Order: sequence, then structure tokens, then C-alpha cells
Amino acid sequence: MKARIHVFLKEGVLDPQGKAVMNALRTLGFGEVQSVRQGKFFDVETDPLAPGESEARLREYCQKLLANPVIENYRVEVLEP
Amino acid sequence: MKARIHVFLKEGVLDPQGKAVMNALRTLGFGEVQSVRQGKFFDVETDPLAPGESEARLREYCQKLLANPVIENYRVEVLEP
Repeated sequence: MKARIHVFLKEGVLDPQGKAVMNALRTLGFGEVQSVRQGKFFDVETDPLAPGESEARLREYCQKLLANPVIENYRVEVLEP
Repeated sequence: MKARIHVFLKEGVLDPQGKAVMNALRTLGFGEVQSVRQGKFFDVETDPLAPGESEARLREYCQKLLANPVIENYRVEVLEP
């Protein structure tokens, strides 16, 4: 299976890294930039999983390792079964 | 304008962070994981830009700040004009 997982800060959680990027873009002359929020994504390849099991398994990856549930949300997408 | 920018390592460039995530997932019992590559994404909001100018501007952000063109590629998507 091929999948993509996005992990990003919950709304309302401060994102100093995104803020730094916004300030840097403005300093470079891109004054139109109003906000930047930064997240990470993971392209994952696995051995085939039982049909219907893929999304649940990807969510397990997030809950056990990839995301900090206190401050982060995640979104999983199966790209190829 | 609302946009999303993905920045990721070029194919062939080693990704030690992705490798560490893969090993951690396997250690946690997810032996089906074959590869993980990690990238980052930016959700950007800007003042309205001239029609047709948005994608070019997003690529400028990447070339001037967000991506290291030696080892990284990027993909830009306009979500709302």
C-alpha cells in the first residue's frame, strides 16, 4: 500500500516556525503574505494489508508515533491499495 | 489567496529522518512498513494576487526561501484564489 499522512498543529496552537517563515517571506519583499502554518507529511509504503484495514492502520501509526495528540491533528490518505 | 506548498527531498536523496520513523514503526510492531519519506508543507494565506499570478508567486516563495533546490523539490497548489 502507498499512503500519505499529513500531521499539523491544531487550530489555536501557536506555530512559531510558521510565523518565522511568514516574517522571512515579508522581509524578502512578499508583503502580501498574511499567514503561514507549517506541517509535516509522510509518504509511507507497506506490504499489502487486508482490504478495509489500511486507513485504520495508518491512524494507528499516527496515534502511536507520528502525531502528538495534545497539539496535533492528522489526516491519512491511501494513494494505492 | 489560500495555498498549500509541499517541499520534499528529491528522489535518491537520503532521508535519515524518514528512515528513523520507519524503524520506529517496525519496532512498535508494524512490520509491514517498507519505507517512509518525510516532507514538510506550508499552508499560506496572502492578500489577493492578480489573476494568473498566484502559482508563479508561490514558486518564488519556494525558490527564495522554502526549498533547497539542491536536494529538494516542491509542489504548489492554489486552494482558494
